[in-house]
Amino acid sequence: MFVARTRLPLSKQTAAQLSKAAASFSNSYSLTSTHSPQNFSSTSRASLRDYFPEPEHDHQIQRTDSAWPHPPYNAEQMKTNIYFAHREPRDFSDRVALFMVRMLRWGTDIATGYKHDVEKPKVAGDKNPVSATKPYAMSERKWLIRMVFLESVAGVPGMVAGMLRHLHSLRRMKRDNGWIETLLEEAYNERMHLLTFLKMAEPGWFMKIMILGAQGVFFNSMFLSYLVSPRTCHRFVGYLEEEAVLTYTLAISDLEAGKLPKWSDPKFRVPDLAVNYWQMPEGNRTMKDLLLYIRADEAKHREVNHTLGNLKQKEDPNPFVSSYKDSEKPHPSKGIEYIKATGWERKDVL
Amino acid sequence: MFVARTRLPLSKQTAAQLSKAAASFSNSYSLTSTHSPQNFSSTSRASLRDYFPEPEHDHQIQRTDSAWPHPPYNAEQMKTNIYFAHREPRDFSDRVALFMVRMLRWGTDIATGYKHDVEKPKVAGDKNPVSATKPYAMSERKWLIRMVFLESVAGVPGMVAGMLRHLHSLRRMKRDNGWIETLLEEAYNERMHLLTFLKMAEPGWFMKIMILGAQGVFFNSMFLSYLVSPRTCHRFVGYLEEEAVLTYTLAISDLEAGKLPKWSDPKFRVPDLAVNYWQMPEGNRTMKDLLLYIRADEAKHREVNHTLGNLKQKEDPNPFVSSYKDSEKPHPSKGIEYIKATGWERKDVL
Ligand SMILES: [Fe+2]
Ligand SMILES: [Fe+2]
Ligand SMILES: [Fe+2]
Ligand SMILES: [Fe+2]
Repeated sequence: MFVARTRLPLSKQTAAQLSKAAASFSNSYSLTSTHSPQNFSSTSRASLRDYFPEPEHDHQIQRTDSAWPHPPYNAEQMKTNIYFAHREPRDFSDRVALFMVRMLRWGTDIATGYKHDVEKPKVAGDKNPVSATKPYAMSERKWLIRMVFLESVAGVPGMVAGMLRHLHSLRRMKRDNGWIETLLEEAYNERMHLLTFLKMAEPGWFMKIMILGAQGVFFNSMFLSYLVSPRTCHRFVGYLEEEAVLTYTLAISDLEAGKLPKWSDPKFRVPDLAVNYWQMPEGNRTMKDLLLYIRADEAKHREVNHTLGNLKQKEDPNPFVSSYKDSEKPHPSKGIEYIKATGWERKDVL
Repeated sequence: MFVARTRLPLSKQTAAQLSKAAASFSNSYSLTSTHSPQNFSSTSRASLRDYFPEPEHDHQIQRTDSAWPHPPYNAEQMKTNIYFAHREPRDFSDRVALFMVRMLRWGTDIATGYKHDVEKPKVAGDKNPVSATKPYAMSERKWLIRMVFLESVAGVPGMVAGMLRHLHSLRRMKRDNGWIETLLEEAYNERMHLLTFLKMAEPGWFMKIMILGAQGVFFNSMFLSYLVSPRTCHRFVGYLEEEAVLTYTLAISDLEAGKLPKWSDPKFRVPDLAVNYWQMPEGNRTMKDLLLYIRADEAKHREVNHTLGNLKQKEDPNPFVSSYKDSEKPHPSKGIEYIKATGWERKDVL
């Protein structure tokens, strides 16, 4: 299992970049751009797939392994154990976190031109959130725009939290209790989501500027917020991941309902990067499989952050990298076998 | 192999903290403090060893694994392959980096009260840098102060570089080519050095304030410098690690010369944290063994950063996490079997 991360011979790369830069202005995903099936399925799609080319180099390096190997997910459990769920806020800090997520969701829906024809599921744990049918407004391309934007932001909080805890440990000279590792791994996992979607679509200049701005604002807000209240920040990420699970659940149900024909086309192949990173078994490499993996990752982040938000930030060990005295009893782990949608209570893990 | 990172029952912890806070004022390592052998070897030393107590808790968690398992080092290679070496600066950027390190070294020597009775080795690769004998000025306690201060700062650059490359990958939507992993691992390794020394000594309030200030200045300088010239920053860390290898080489030769009797005492035991992290084999768990491991780590950082300073920052793959087509030929790796003291040239690894 590995992720190939090698570069093209320089001349080839430069040529490819130049042609893409030229295309970028005429092919920009702005709010008003309309979806053109021909363009998406033929020219544009084909050229976009070469954006991060597979190894084809002239140097001595064969391949580069994945920084954090992905834990294996059971195919059946990805369908039964992962679903939309909402943790009710319990105190002021929770409500602040939830309010912030609702605000951001509203802004992002506008920015990525998101309009879905189903109601948001009202019941936590509802495994089939498709409950109403309005005129359909999404497409493969629109989904990709939304996912690229969301994933480019999603890699920020874990890195900020991991870095701040690292610096805290150094200057206060206290051990960290294992939190940093999980936070950095989350950030890496989100970056792999982004790189996977970028194999299928390249954003235009408008989206690129949006992403630059969003990172600047989001990084600084997270940095300051985490210094003030790490607990609220983990809760905030927990609520953000609730939305992520919902987004991917809706994308999967669109795909199942036959609304995204390019993704259910039997000729569609998920990028090699994804096959290698998630160790996708042969015969299970469709776009639906990929979305199931990514949704399970988001549900994992939701569980981790809701749990960390329940713990004492400076003293408690990270339950997700610990081994338990009674290993038969369900306990927090890296996999999804015991995943708890709304996180673990402190008394249940310590 | 694991690192126990669990907490004390709360009441016990609070009591321990209070008693230490009280001791902190009377037991401060200021510039003018004089070394008291009795204090160091009996009361103070014994109580300091409990600073990060071994697992002795009342909750369900058994243990927490190491975030990055340490690669095994061969005992013989730690003596033959690791030595002081200096890479001659080749351009303006190199000279800036070297000048900054010399400035910092000068300031740190004053701050940590460092005075050594040997000349700095003049020849790169000199395996026995003890060349002159002046009145001896160091002691176990003075060495520990210096090491705690240096290691608390050493964990900063890898984290800054890893974080900035992560954010760059997200906002520019380019793969990272495997650099982040090695940089974060370096930061983690330095933090383990710090936590190990803190098992043997706790700094007083003066040193604690110094460490706070140093982190603030160093983090911000590294952050800005890395945005301006990552290449110069890696070279800077390479030169810094040359000094680290020298420091540990001198400490080891002091120990061998019988100048640090508490550390060569057969009753001395290295902390369990160190035994677990480095997987120190039974019968090789003396202070000298520990210093050999740490010196090899510093030599590894020296090699990594001098090499990264030779590469194209945005395009080249990280040679230390890649596998090579011709795996028989010496190539960069995580271990010390092929370690190159002054780093690898770009043409030799790509
Ligand atoms: Fe994601
Ligand atoms: Fe996520
Ligand atoms: Fe170190
Ligand atoms: Fe170092």
